[in-house]
Amino acid sequence: MLTVVAEDGHEGYAFQSPDVIRPSVVDKYLRPALVGEDAFYRERIWQNVEQRQRGSSGQLADKALSAMDQALWDLAGRALNLPVHRLIGGFRDKIAAYGSIMCGDDIPGGLATPDDYGNFAQELVSRGYTAIKLHTWMPPMPGAPDPRNDVRACAAVRKAVGPDIALMLDGYHWYNRSDALYIGKALEELDFLWFEEPMDEASMSSYAWLSANLSIPVIGPESMQGKYRTRAEWVRGNASDILRTGMLSAGGLGPVLKTAHLAEANGMNCEIHGNGAANLALCMAVANCVYYERGLLHPHLDYDQPPLYLNAIPDPMDGEGFVHASQLPGLGEDINFDYIRSHAID
Amino acid sequence: MLTVVAEDGHEGYAFQSPDVIRPSVVDKYLRPALVGEDAFYRERIWQNVEQRQRGSSGQLADKALSAMDQALWDLAGRALNLPVHRLIGGFRDKIAAYGSIMCGDDIPGGLATPDDYGNFAQELVSRGYTAIKLHTWMPPMPGAPDPRNDVRACAAVRKAVGPDIALMLDGYHWYNRSDALYIGKALEELDFLWFEEPMDEASMSSYAWLSANLSIPVIGPESMQGKYRTRAEWVRGNASDILRTGMLSAGGLGPVLKTAHLAEANGMNCEIHGNGAANLALCMAVANCVYYERGLLHPHLDYDQPPLYLNAIPDPMDGEGFVHASQLPGLGEDINFDYIRSHAID
Repeated sequence: MLTVVAEDGHEGYAFQSPDVIRPSVVDKYLRPALVGEDAFYRERIWQNVEQRQRGSSGQLADKALSAMDQALWDLAGRALNLPVHRLIGGFRDKIAAYGSIMCGDDIPGGLATPDDYGNFAQELVSRGYTAIKLHTWMPPMPGAPDPRNDVRACAAVRKAVGPDIALMLDGYHWYNRSDALYIGKALEELDFLWFEEPMDEASMSSYAWLSANLSIPVIGPESMQGKYRTRAEWVRGNASDILRTGMLSAGGLGPVLKTAHLAEANGMNCEIHGNGAANLALCMAVANCVYYERGLLHPHLDYDQPPLYLNAIPDPMDGEGFVHASQLPGLGEDINFDYIRSHAID
Repeated sequence: MLTVVAEDGHEGYAFQSPDVIRPSVVDKYLRPALVGEDAFYRERIWQNVEQRQRGSSGQLADKALSAMDQALWDLAGRALNLPVHRLIGGFRDKIAAYGSIMCGDDIPGGLATPDDYGNFAQELVSRGYTAIKLHTWMPPMPGAPDPRNDVRACAAVRKAVGPDIALMLDGYHWYNRSDALYIGKALEELDFLWFEEPMDEASMSSYAWLSANLSIPVIGPESMQGKYRTRAEWVRGNASDILRTGMLSAGGLGPVLKTAHLAEANGMNCEIHGNGAANLALCMAVANCVYYERGLLHPHLDYDQPPLYLNAIPDPMDGEGFVHASQLPGLGEDINFDYIRSHAID
């Protein structure tokens, strides 16, 4: 947990892997930019720290920048006693979630076969989900990648849930153009809502080619380096129909908003990648997104069980498939400080 | 003055011409979107009202939308006891102002000749300005428009202020391509910083042509309909080197931020058009702008004298040419409520 403390005692928090916000990163890059600064000067702090990334030889990751920005927004919301989506300027009170199914596996009763996907999707619909996204099999799973098996899983899910559930595919990320086109055409037949990252995103031209050859919306980029600047190139290059960004790769709430604004100015939606309190707050503030990504989900896991460091999950879903805006100040994470204190290491 | 009152008694204000926020506009478009809403749901309110513009037959102007959004940001800042630039997330505490000289006239001792511009520019430098923008002669001034006279005024100013003052030109807006190119080449010789709106902005192709043929940065669009969406087209069309937006035409602080973000994602600056508390707050929050437009200025007018409805101007300048961020809650306008109350009409 990254904690930013203001002089007046207000605090902001962000959870991130200790590999990402390890002490050397905090000491070398974050602390010098934060100590002595006005915590409400988020843009100046962010710009200053971002410019340290290039010289950091990869040590200052986008995720670390995200964690810092997230903690600053959380601090602002907590200090002002205001949920962050209302601090940004709210757009909605609730948003439909898509159940984001984990990658395929070889576990009995898990996600080993197309029928496993179909059965689990049916189960998700019974819980209230109105939209479902599949992640399919990737190496080292036996037989993966296999475009035909991906399509089989998608067909099994469509058959299981009927025509009224929105479906998306986010499968193997290194298909060639032909395989991606084959899958995309099949998804059109299956009335899928979007097709996500079937190829390496470094080849933007491949995405422009794919988007031009498919009627199903292609969404991206998600994992390509370069934050909102890369997204601007994708817009100019007509490389996708829907932009994509989120707290994991954008570098913070500020950059997610910049990407959403870039998309809106260009008549495009921008869907938010990933779950968690910050992405949820962004979904409540961004006009041109449609879904919240709830997951990852697996038949053997209980997503609704909070992790030990939280008293409650930030994104409970109602029976109609909606996740509601948090009313808590800041990003709305209900943190179990007792647990964290008693399990802290030096 | 447009006033938005929240249920808890907090208020936000925006000044705009009574022609723009006349009662029928407020009653028909603004009031229905605001009453019963959460005042912190700025994005939802804005999107709802903006969609009423098309059906309003021009009655719901961008300026009215701007005034509404401005009042909502002001309300949020006042309710949270926070200056708006820190609510957005601050980037700077002060910004260099350019003295924005009024259009040419035929008034003795005014702006009737190139030398008048030179003399006034010298006077502005002595007040602390480090940057100056000229508006030159427009019809119905005798002899206007005249590209050669525009260049003469620019040359007189450069000669008067020396090489270290940043200079910009924003002259007649309906030159043809040849005249615009002639002026632009002259501005390059005179080491001007940018060249603003020499042609009708509806001809985006003319701007792309001009930008391709000049090394001096071309800035725009400023007055073209379409808010951030038009700016996105200019980016895609390489129609300008610097984007431009501001409270007068953008439709509010939110859309100005969207345009600045669009520009930043595309590696461009976005300069803020116009003066006033809202534009100043935006200058303090936007990373990719360089100047605040202070003016319009004229030898016979005292810009530092507040209008009767304000106790102080929002943008006093220090001796080194900087305007500082307001520390007042909201947009920082120090409103003379007594004056307004005693001069209100039904």
